[in-house]
Amino acid sequence: MTKPASGTYPWTVAHLRIALAQVNSTVGDLDGNADTVVEWARRAADAGAHLVAFPEMMLTGYPVEDLALRASFVEASQRALARLARRLADEGLGDLPVVTGYLDRRTGGPVRAGQPAGAPLNAAAWLHGGEVLVRSAKHHLPNYGVFDEYRIFVRGDRLPVVRVHGVDVATVICEDLWQDGGPVGVAGTAGAGLLLAVNASPYERNKDDVRLDLCARRAREAGCALAYVNMVGGQDELVFDGDSVIVGSDGTPLARAPQFVEHLLVTDLTLPAAPATVPDDAAVDRHVLSAEPLPDRPAEAPTVAEPLDDLAEIYAALVLGTRDYVRKNGFRSVVLGLSGGIDSALVATIASDAIGPEHVHAVLLPSRYSSEGSVVDAEDLVKRQGVNARTVPIADMVEAFETQLDLHGLAAENLQARIRANVWMALSNEHGHLVLTGGNKSELATGYSTLYGDSAGGFAPIKDVFKLTVWELARWRNAQAGTELPFLHPFPHEPIPEAIIVKEPSAELRPGQRDRDTLPEYTVLDPVLADYVERDMGRDALVAAGHDPALVERTIRLVDLAEYKRRQYPPGPKITPKNFGRDRRLPITNRWREPSTRN
Amino acid sequence: MTKPASGTYPWTVAHLRIALAQVNSTVGDLDGNADTVVEWARRAADAGAHLVAFPEMMLTGYPVEDLALRASFVEASQRALARLARRLADEGLGDLPVVTGYLDRRTGGPVRAGQPAGAPLNAAAWLHGGEVLVRSAKHHLPNYGVFDEYRIFVRGDRLPVVRVHGVDVATVICEDLWQDGGPVGVAGTAGAGLLLAVNASPYERNKDDVRLDLCARRAREAGCALAYVNMVGGQDELVFDGDSVIVGSDGTPLARAPQFVEHLLVTDLTLPAAPATVPDDAAVDRHVLSAEPLPDRPAEAPTVAEPLDDLAEIYAALVLGTRDYVRKNGFRSVVLGLSGGIDSALVATIASDAIGPEHVHAVLLPSRYSSEGSVVDAEDLVKRQGVNARTVPIADMVEAFETQLDLHGLAAENLQARIRANVWMALSNEHGHLVLTGGNKSELATGYSTLYGDSAGGFAPIKDVFKLTVWELARWRNAQAGTELPFLHPFPHEPIPEAIIVKEPSAELRPGQRDRDTLPEYTVLDPVLADYVERDMGRDALVAAGHDPALVERTIRLVDLAEYKRRQYPPGPKITPKNFGRDRRLPITNRWREPSTRN
Repeated sequence: MTKPASGTYPWTVAHLRIALAQVNSTVGDLDGNADTVVEWARRAADAGAHLVAFPEMMLTGYPVEDLALRASFVEASQRALARLARRLADEGLGDLPVVTGYLDRRTGGPVRAGQPAGAPLNAAAWLHGGEVLVRSAKHHLPNYGVFDEYRIFVRGDRLPVVRVHGVDVATVICEDLWQDGGPVGVAGTAGAGLLLAVNASPYERNKDDVRLDLCARRAREAGCALAYVNMVGGQDELVFDGDSVIVGSDGTPLARAPQFVEHLLVTDLTLPAAPATVPDDAAVDRHVLSAEPLPDRPAEAPTVAEPLDDLAEIYAALVLGTRDYVRKNGFRSVVLGLSGGIDSALVATIASDAIGPEHVHAVLLPSRYSSEGSVVDAEDLVKRQGVNARTVPIADMVEAFETQLDLHGLAAENLQARIRANVWMALSNEHGHLVLTGGNKSELATGYSTLYGDSAGGFAPIKDVFKLTVWELARWRNAQAGTELPFLHPFPHEPIPEAIIVKEPSAELRPGQRDRDTLPEYTVLDPVLADYVERDMGRDALVAAGHDPALVERTIRLVDLAEYKRRQYPPGPKITPKNFGRDRRLPITNRWREPSTRN
Repeated sequence: MTKPASGTYPWTVAHLRIALAQVNSTVGDLDGNADTVVEWARRAADAGAHLVAFPEMMLTGYPVEDLALRASFVEASQRALARLARRLADEGLGDLPVVTGYLDRRTGGPVRAGQPAGAPLNAAAWLHGGEVLVRSAKHHLPNYGVFDEYRIFVRGDRLPVVRVHGVDVATVICEDLWQDGGPVGVAGTAGAGLLLAVNASPYERNKDDVRLDLCARRAREAGCALAYVNMVGGQDELVFDGDSVIVGSDGTPLARAPQFVEHLLVTDLTLPAAPATVPDDAAVDRHVLSAEPLPDRPAEAPTVAEPLDDLAEIYAALVLGTRDYVRKNGFRSVVLGLSGGIDSALVATIASDAIGPEHVHAVLLPSRYSSEGSVVDAEDLVKRQGVNARTVPIADMVEAFETQLDLHGLAAENLQARIRANVWMALSNEHGHLVLTGGNKSELATGYSTLYGDSAGGFAPIKDVFKLTVWELARWRNAQAGTELPFLHPFPHEPIPEAIIVKEPSAELRPGQRDRDTLPEYTVLDPVLADYVERDMGRDALVAAGHDPALVERTIRLVDLAEYKRRQYPPGPKITPKNFGRDRRLPITNRWREPSTRN
């Protein structure tokens, strides 16, 4: 409980300059992530901020998946937090309150059967004066879609409310904002002047609008301004778009950070001053850092970034996802097959934008069925973008297999695709490039690809992009030539040859092959796929939605068969934590290493 | 509320012959699973049972994973249940109470954000007289290890208590038994005379003892006998071992079904008769089928199967897992590379036991580095088991690649492994065999295998068996020659040549290569792997457990790197339900198809 502050009591309003650090952390890189906190806290201090907030699970990166269940990792996170608090003070940043996410564990409390080992917590802490001032943990644990938090965390039940220059600031974590009830309501009744939400909320198309509406609604519910800081960066299959935002107590947007880039969103806020007496609530942890408001001063104009349009947003997400997969996994270069078709052309362009064309290695792998146009178009792209390239004809390799094996139809087609994959995997093993693979969502969903063949590789930049969108993105990217966007390489001319965009799609695995011999036209296929794959609609619902019944039947058959084959052949056997069972869920990118025994 | 029964009231004991149907269901095969229920209900009726119980999610198979989120699948399960009830009556089985698991959904009730779409329920029903008498759903949703139920189900909150020949029988579902509190306690206070638990509890080594102890404890808690019916069969990576059991109210085992085979466990029980008046509990759904106990009659001797010893149990699980993966996925034959080493020899033997040697196709793929011994030993195994075999030398294929690519070290070794995989994938595509792959847990955990090479394939029978256990299993299997076990092919002689068991392990990808050039000796490696991979112990804990510190460091480095590489290169891109995000979780084996629009 606080004492009423002295001075010109009672204040009604107080001023606060807050900084939201929309930064890119890496799973498991505790030291690197701590460095990022120190660096950006310094920037916030330099900008005169009174408080700086970092995303959910900042110190460990997000999502940590089953790593949360390993005791040594939880302990490493706890130690890293204490070390970070001391270091901030040592480097002269002890007076600046720093809010950051990290991984903790609960001691004591009820134990349920099957509770995650070690009772890990998705936690946030206020650091100040070299110490950890207060810790709290996420109340609501999402366990749907991409989230598995009920599996790896136990629930928190506290709400920290910290008085900073006369403003009571409450902190909640991500899902706590999405769920009705819970800490947001408590923050309202606790009389908070600012609700600070730390997040790791992955990008989806059009999610920015949903998030903004949610923030506005929760601000009105809590009756106070809301500051929402989100992570930015790629982590395995997820891309975090940033898009941090501050809304007023009436839900009006006050400031907004740009998407897909790191950004320090510094904003002057005029907020209700903390009341003289505060309601008593056993679930609230109150702390006072500075009870008195600051003297009045003119507010600086806030940053209000315009959201990107739909295609720009998707393209930016693909570039960031690719760059971070390459970089965070310790690669510097990529290798990919360049067929002369639109998919590999778009992937090469995304790779050039992500890591620079000088780090992109294209392989042209013509077979006896490759058209001359394909080779010429691929060579044109190589010249336009300045990527590295080599040609490896596969005819002799195909013949060496066919001499011994009598193959027909699909078996013969698949053989060629697998020989190509062998070549780029060999180049990857020999030179240390990461293999990028070019399948799009339409062909992967319908199984129009070869296992261990064209689908082989470490990262598939456009795996979640339907074919029609592939063409749209190619045209969009060409239209940006000569413009300046932070996530694009500055190609002065169109990076993708028009001939590649307009040609009829073909796998070129047999004479005269065309996609439409096997698949419905993409103009009708893609809408059905979107409803079936992304909206999980059943057959009756698809027909009721207006799709042609015969097309629906055909598409479902294709997708179900592909789904089945895709799951049936794993990448390689997945060993499990038990003698029988299922693979552990672990992040791919993970910089954490078991501490040495000498620690 | 029941009326006190007439007759020689008050009864104190009543007799019941119950049948536990330990059967093998297939995910998505609603019609086939319903057929199984009808067939085994008839057997139960023929055996004079008064009640027959089937496993958890019997009608849909288990686990259904994200299939539970598709509305059309839930509705198909609901319709299948109603149809099954009518069919049982139509076929003269309407008087026999049938308890079975199925998939249902909740209508109404609270909705939480992120709640599984459609509020699916892991449900059980009593069928009687052509109708569904009572429905209930699992209270406790496991979401750890291999379970994801909080993701796909909402909780049930009812306890059905059905009076059968004067005995109040309460039904609960699987995890409800493992959690303290919940319906087991309610069953006790509700005065049930028999607690019936329907389960889908996967096999783990030594889990049978844990389960038996649990059943004994819960029986004592509820103060009544407990009948535990478990699924049997392989489903993707899981194997269900059956091992259904009945314990008395003091925890004493009364009957036990054999492991790894379908079985109808018919048992005569003498149970406390239902009391004249029963406590009122809003969470209990009471029904009376027959209030009066049956006349006394002599009980038949119960079946009390002896559990298998450890190696027999593991081998039985491997055979059943392999057979069901092949069969449930619609294959009749398998193809595998036979190197002359112990791993592929054991896999071939498991395959022969699972589907018969006449359906096993071995390929010998000698390279310039294959020893003559390897070829001779592989040929000896082919002769002993009578599997189909062909030889495809790979030297020319290797040369066709090496002419164009300048490869060294690992890149050159991996090329050979990938060419072999190309051959067996081509044979799979051409002839429709499923590819079995031979990696064991020691080499997969340490990354001693080639992605898209020896690790390629649809099913990896020994992926969760450490190398030392591979040798033990080979010796155990040879020792069974001439004996009769239901899960073994009746080879009259030892199926595995002794030369294969005693030779030094080698990948034969370069001259004179031996496993121990790269890996620690398996005698010291396997125990560290077990503690690190299966028990998730950190470095300090491993050293504290007595492992050599240098070995610990080396093993952790190997495993972490392998883990990372294994995850980094997916099998093929995994498309997701959103435009960004993660793959849906779906069973591999799934016989369900979207109903036709004409339905």
